[in-house]
Amino acid sequence: MHIRPDRLLADMRALATIGQHMTGVNRPAFSDADIAAREWLRNKMMNAGLAAEIDCYGNVYGRAINADRTVLIGSHSDTVPFGGWLDGAMGVIYGLEIARCVIESGSQSCGIDVISFQDEEGTYLPFLGSHAFCGDDLMAEIETAKSKDGQTLKDAMSKAALPGNAAVRLDPRRHAAYFEAHIEQGPRLESSGRKIGVVTAIVGIKSFRLLFRGQANHAGTTPMDMRRDAGGAAMCLGNLLNQRMPAIGGPQTVWNVGNMRFEPGAINVVPALAEVFLQVRDISPAVVAEAEHLVRALAAECAESFKVDVEVECLHDTEPAAMTPALAKLIEKAAAELGAPSASMPSGAGHDAMIVVRHIPSAMLFVPSIGGRSHHISEDTSDADIVLGAQVLLRAIELFMANGAR
Amino acid sequence: MHIRPDRLLADMRALATIGQHMTGVNRPAFSDADIAAREWLRNKMMNAGLAAEIDCYGNVYGRAINADRTVLIGSHSDTVPFGGWLDGAMGVIYGLEIARCVIESGSQSCGIDVISFQDEEGTYLPFLGSHAFCGDDLMAEIETAKSKDGQTLKDAMSKAALPGNAAVRLDPRRHAAYFEAHIEQGPRLESSGRKIGVVTAIVGIKSFRLLFRGQANHAGTTPMDMRRDAGGAAMCLGNLLNQRMPAIGGPQTVWNVGNMRFEPGAINVVPALAEVFLQVRDISPAVVAEAEHLVRALAAECAESFKVDVEVECLHDTEPAAMTPALAKLIEKAAAELGAPSASMPSGAGHDAMIVVRHIPSAMLFVPSIGGRSHHISEDTSDADIVLGAQVLLRAIELFMANGAR
Repeated sequence: MHIRPDRLLADMRALATIGQHMTGVNRPAFSDADIAAREWLRNKMMNAGLAAEIDCYGNVYGRAINADRTVLIGSHSDTVPFGGWLDGAMGVIYGLEIARCVIESGSQSCGIDVISFQDEEGTYLPFLGSHAFCGDDLMAEIETAKSKDGQTLKDAMSKAALPGNAAVRLDPRRHAAYFEAHIEQGPRLESSGRKIGVVTAIVGIKSFRLLFRGQANHAGTTPMDMRRDAGGAAMCLGNLLNQRMPAIGGPQTVWNVGNMRFEPGAINVVPALAEVFLQVRDISPAVVAEAEHLVRALAAECAESFKVDVEVECLHDTEPAAMTPALAKLIEKAAAELGAPSASMPSGAGHDAMIVVRHIPSAMLFVPSIGGRSHHISEDTSDADIVLGAQVLLRAIELFMANGAR
Repeated sequence: MHIRPDRLLADMRALATIGQHMTGVNRPAFSDADIAAREWLRNKMMNAGLAAEIDCYGNVYGRAINADRTVLIGSHSDTVPFGGWLDGAMGVIYGLEIARCVIESGSQSCGIDVISFQDEEGTYLPFLGSHAFCGDDLMAEIETAKSKDGQTLKDAMSKAALPGNAAVRLDPRRHAAYFEAHIEQGPRLESSGRKIGVVTAIVGIKSFRLLFRGQANHAGTTPMDMRRDAGGAAMCLGNLLNQRMPAIGGPQTVWNVGNMRFEPGAINVVPALAEVFLQVRDISPAVVAEAEHLVRALAAECAESFKVDVEVECLHDTEPAAMTPALAKLIEKAAAELGAPSASMPSGAGHDAMIVVRHIPSAMLFVPSIGGRSHHISEDTSDADIVLGAQVLLRAIELFMANGAR
């Protein structure tokens, strides 16, 4: 089977006009543009011959008619505020195009279901759509979830007039596997000249807030050895973390001190308080656990040397999610057959696949991001790479079907 | 001669009621409370037998009648917002009390002139009063000076209705020496059990703003070796400064990284920009110069290791000001005669004496600050220490007069 490049690209470009912002897209979950895009998508799915609906959470689901066993392909059509045109949308349109190809081929072996999950980007509640699809209990979170500007998720859902619709649910008897294609959002493929990233696992993320409490003192009249400098402790912690993390993880381990804030923040006052926000990511739970141990040990060490107190709070903890190796191998094989150089790699960002893989075999495929950019209007991938990615995914699914859909 | 403790303390307490805020004082330069305090002070000086006036800058000057050669004693009666009751005010009331003692003694050898300089704290223009008194050209600065809330100095001066008054000027033929007493604003005297600090020099201060510019990147998908982390460079700079400064200065050298700011400041984005505010202080111009060299070298070194750019801007540069050794010796001798344990020490904060000493011999005396606190409503000194400081200063001036006023 062959995807139709013009149709694929035309649909992607048409979707990008809904909420278009310069060269990017502004389509946060439940915004007017997001709902319009979901309605557009539902119509596209119906035109393709799928039984399509938007469920009470905003998930758009296209169901293969006359198939009991299917491959589910999807991603999300919501974006970060003023984001790019590919993040999420590409994976959804891949699903639409591949469903069309399979329907057009008259294949009887297996159908394709397509889904666009709601709020992957967390405008209200990250991965709302995939959690709901997988049957996770979201009652408490939905009651309290709010956007940054204070709008409640419940209001947003009511405004979109979705609550009356039925919930679409994952059905392991029907859904044999889940495939998600996505832009890499990083520079590895481009810088190595590879065209296809075969995702081994989605990293676990642990985020911390550290609060060092010292004493504000006159920075001219207080001798150095009588200070309790919270800022000094915070800088020391960040610096030691940068020095010691490489010994804990591998070349794929990443960490980031993303923000630091001093109080009172005056040039002539010893900082009384320093707040540090940092996170670590790795595909190995052991590495993440060891990194947490390091963060806590260094915080205590720096607090002691600077005679300050410290609190370490874990803000956020997502476990690593390994992709299904057998499916990853099919993507690798498909790429090789099509002459596309591929590389195995972790996903450093979270994706809906990390929720779905808890229930059914799942795999992810990356295409190169120009300049590694994403979540920005400059986010882009060449047409050739977009088309190649779709063809590789279709071939991987053909291989999966040939194996008798497991 | 002996000061009268009750009169001294009563005047200090009376002055502290003008602009009183809880246990402290809120009397920023040119505020209603500041002008009221200056009028109160002028009346007190007149009652003491001095010819008193408020000049066009707000300086309150009490002139000894029938004296051609005088010792000038002073400090400032303005405060930082919601500051303490002693910073500045104590030195002014010491002058008033000592002038009264000398007048009452009928001494013919030398008169005492008393001054309260305006805006030492820099609500509009730091050391406005002492600069103006010393004849420094302030035209350009006065045109542009503004308070933090945007009020112009010119408006503040007009509102206080002072511009019509004549300027009071330092006269080296009249003013044989300048003495300023002040609270230490630091913990050294208290922690060593000394009662009198004999100031050797007022430190030079060099303040810097460093701006590291890297690149914002996704903190999950960008490998560590492909990052340009401005925050990492800034933390590294602060940490190396803390490690290497001790080798440059002596035990009195101080430095402070007072503020740090990251952009975009998100936990999952590599910082594109980091702004650092730091300062160094020492009494030796050579140490200050070497510290600046270190700051610039470390900034370049850290920028290179983190593949970012850096700009180093010198925000502020005050040269160290040595006090007059012969006068310092008189304070030391007076303290010894009165059984008050004293210690030579630098002043880590700026004072009006650093302006005046450029023109006439000048000296400073410190009394202990409880808990080293200042610029806060908790700023305090015991009554006994306040009284002892005044007596030591009076004795030092007696010794100066006995030497024939130079």
